[in-house]
Amino acid sequence: MAAPSLPTPRVIHVDTRGAVILSEESPETRDSRGIYLPNYIEPVSHIAVDIGGSLAKVVYFTRSPEPPNSPSIAATRGSSTASSLSTPAQGSPLDEHPPSSFSLSPPALLSSSHPRQNGALTPLVLESHAYNGNGYSNGDKSPKPRKCSNDNTDVSLLDADLLHSTILRRASQNSTPRHFPGGSLNFERFETDDIDACVSFIEALIARSARANNVSIEEMRRGVKIMATGGGAHRFYELFSGTLGVEVRREDEMECLIEGLKFITMIPEEAYYFSDELIHSTKGVSGSGSGSTAGIVLERPSPDPPKYAVTFEEEPSPQLPCLLVNIGSGVSIIRVDADGTFERVSGTSLGGGTLWGLLSLLTPATSFDEMLDLSEKGDNAFVDMLVGDIYGQDYSKLGLKSTMIASSFGKVFKKGGTRGKFKAEDISRSLLYAISNNIGQIAYMNAEKYHLDRIYFGGCFIRGHAATITTLSYAIRFWSKGTKRALFLRHEGFLGSIGAWIKNIDSEETVSPASL
Amino acid sequence: MAAPSLPTPRVIHVDTRGAVILSEESPETRDSRGIYLPNYIEPVSHIAVDIGGSLAKVVYFTRSPEPPNSPSIAATRGSSTASSLSTPAQGSPLDEHPPSSFSLSPPALLSSSHPRQNGALTPLVLESHAYNGNGYSNGDKSPKPRKCSNDNTDVSLLDADLLHSTILRRASQNSTPRHFPGGSLNFERFETDDIDACVSFIEALIARSARANNVSIEEMRRGVKIMATGGGAHRFYELFSGTLGVEVRREDEMECLIEGLKFITMIPEEAYYFSDELIHSTKGVSGSGSGSTAGIVLERPSPDPPKYAVTFEEEPSPQLPCLLVNIGSGVSIIRVDADGTFERVSGTSLGGGTLWGLLSLLTPATSFDEMLDLSEKGDNAFVDMLVGDIYGQDYSKLGLKSTMIASSFGKVFKKGGTRGKFKAEDISRSLLYAISNNIGQIAYMNAEKYHLDRIYFGGCFIRGHAATITTLSYAIRFWSKGTKRALFLRHEGFLGSIGAWIKNIDSEETVSPASL
Repeated sequence: MAAPSLPTPRVIHVDTRGAVILSEESPETRDSRGIYLPNYIEPVSHIAVDIGGSLAKVVYFTRSPEPPNSPSIAATRGSSTASSLSTPAQGSPLDEHPPSSFSLSPPALLSSSHPRQNGALTPLVLESHAYNGNGYSNGDKSPKPRKCSNDNTDVSLLDADLLHSTILRRASQNSTPRHFPGGSLNFERFETDDIDACVSFIEALIARSARANNVSIEEMRRGVKIMATGGGAHRFYELFSGTLGVEVRREDEMECLIEGLKFITMIPEEAYYFSDELIHSTKGVSGSGSGSTAGIVLERPSPDPPKYAVTFEEEPSPQLPCLLVNIGSGVSIIRVDADGTFERVSGTSLGGGTLWGLLSLLTPATSFDEMLDLSEKGDNAFVDMLVGDIYGQDYSKLGLKSTMIASSFGKVFKKGGTRGKFKAEDISRSLLYAISNNIGQIAYMNAEKYHLDRIYFGGCFIRGHAATITTLSYAIRFWSKGTKRALFLRHEGFLGSIGAWIKNIDSEETVSPASL
Repeated sequence: MAAPSLPTPRVIHVDTRGAVILSEESPETRDSRGIYLPNYIEPVSHIAVDIGGSLAKVVYFTRSPEPPNSPSIAATRGSSTASSLSTPAQGSPLDEHPPSSFSLSPPALLSSSHPRQNGALTPLVLESHAYNGNGYSNGDKSPKPRKCSNDNTDVSLLDADLLHSTILRRASQNSTPRHFPGGSLNFERFETDDIDACVSFIEALIARSARANNVSIEEMRRGVKIMATGGGAHRFYELFSGTLGVEVRREDEMECLIEGLKFITMIPEEAYYFSDELIHSTKGVSGSGSGSTAGIVLERPSPDPPKYAVTFEEEPSPQLPCLLVNIGSGVSIIRVDADGTFERVSGTSLGGGTLWGLLSLLTPATSFDEMLDLSEKGDNAFVDMLVGDIYGQDYSKLGLKSTMIASSFGKVFKKGGTRGKFKAEDISRSLLYAISNNIGQIAYMNAEKYHLDRIYFGGCFIRGHAATITTLSYAIRFWSKGTKRALFLRHEGFLGSIGAWIKNIDSEETVSPASL
């Protein structure tokens, strides 16, 4: 494996005080909700693009003095049961809205069609003449939404008074000046196969921003940089730089993942895990063999999994050292030391692309969300060979229970090719378990090898899906006998793009409101 | 995981001097060739049955003073190239005969139909009156094949003189008396779903043996024991004991696997591996990153894999400590210490059953051999997402080459469900690689964890198939940077049944020819 790279530990120059994750604007955007940063201004607009094997992820920052519609209220804490996993709790990653679909169906709640058009790029470099430290160029000292022709921020706010007082209260708590430029990190996704749509989107963003800032396209372009990462940063470099006419910088994928991880874990209510609080309330069998938490033998995931609670990380900061398992089309496993140095130590080719590919041929599903929906209704016992099927009883001596999976898909093959009828739901669940359990096992083994207790899962594979999170959590807990913890991220798919966005901030002259 | 079990180290009371693996009698029996043990006699007949999730493996010993037809000549040594992998070299596990098929097509070379009827059970307990130390009850002092009604050993021998002198020469080398009772270990397989066929076979074997020994069935049964292992030993206990009317003992599966491994590795030309001799003759790229043997970066398996040589273990003895990876429907990973103590430390549910199940639904193949045939013609690059597809170049910094698989099956899913046409051959190769690479990776990680350099692969999954052996060998070599070795066994599927057969030998009074 490569020698560890040694990036200089960075001070994050993005002011994350008062950061708030916005509630989703539509079902499609559940896992790409904007993050409102009330204290940050961009000197130069960075548009970050992380182009992977299947998806291109885009991050950019838009200005608005007040948060856009419906800021998130504190998310669910420790109250999810299996039934409430289907109940929308605002901000809960496990609410009932289906995860964003790959298909670009128009969202119901926005007046404009997807992709969203949130605000405009308003880098300070364009505004040095407009902003005089006391308000906006219109002379008004109180914060007002900037009027942009395509800006949704001037849609009437729900409960505007409550909103305004909330913002002011948070601001006073953080000792920031009453006027805060602020703005939102916005997140978008595109199919890599349809990269032109991504390019067009950025092109439109730049054009819209030029109009909003009353500058020419050429001048706007001078205030914009594209930070590109992922494999596609190389593959599509010419396409981006040639079409958009802006500076394009290529950033190392692993470095961006790690920078993104360190940044995103500083946002409150970003990282979460399944607590073990409720395990003790399940009908535990006093354990033998597998030596689990409090002596209770942990059951394998089944159609009726034990009830877990979603718990958010109490201290939103990068918990280093840690292992990052980035699950996209394939899987990269990166170890991160306490000082932030990192090394890609492993990976597996059995990733999201494998599951999506198999299910696209084995089921009628045409999107990953449909596949996840199918799996929720399935019972893998019809498709998998369980320990009980082979032994007729527990293989207790080895810590194996009869409900454990001995052979994934092991019931499917019949001699002579008699193809039994297998339900798409059962197939989906079986393969979801197979891929997730396998990733969990390999992740665990690497965590053990490098003496790491915290395992963050990133990438577009999980999508807040309950069964996947449960399976990964359980695999880590099972193999580690409860000593290691799986952590999940609400912006899991955007680590690379966030990292690309972040990476160059401190090379720019930064501006904080206090200095204005 | 369970605490290690501590079996008493056993002296193997089976006399393996002069053991010879017989050449295959038919294509179907390539990986279940008999083992001729010229110096062994059974006091009591043991029939061992290892009943797994998919297959029931049977081992039994039959007497004959001379080896049956066509004993194996010394098998191929280090001479296989890709083209010769399809050339039959006598005794080579990689000859052109297709591996045994699950389908029970009649073999071409035997007069009787499969399953074979090799000899009869002739435990000494029945013959104490017949055998007088100087020959057989017919008073003849020279070894003769016993005449049994269904015995094939009296088919005319090929080159009988050469055969006879070979046997005598080996005998003199081993200082054994000129008359040697000897006999063969026989191997059979049945589908677990068709366990009745297995029971019937044993029933017929017992009946045939009673006739051959001129005793009643009841007396014959008293000279026979069934040693049952695997999950089915529990599931089918009543079936076996009730139907066959003989004593049935259940033996622990893991113990049997290890006993079987220790025994079988004492048979010459049983264990083999792919040597690295020919690697240096491939067009090596001077390595960076992955630090492989002699600085050459090891290529991922591709449609044109590097040419390896099959090399047999020079010292046929159990090479302990070691890791045993038993690949059946599922996979068990067992570590064996230098003193023979062992512990099941890991496993994976992504095993043979997974591959067979997936390919049975995704291809027209109706048997595992058809699946392997398909894979040999396929190119996984049409189905897998390679590093080069994502990056357009090597990701050299991480030791990844553009031909490496980033996402297995990663090209298959297309948004909106447009299902491209994918060839069965390419699908088969992709999934064979995915499952094999994954097993290799997990095996490697466990070998590393327990500081083991030798990894034996057992189970019915490999079946001497070149691509599978190559993939597993390569995975171990890649991950270990050439420091660990994958070893394969010609009777890989019969470790458990051999172990069950062996396990109780020393509890019986043993008889060696010298004492007669």
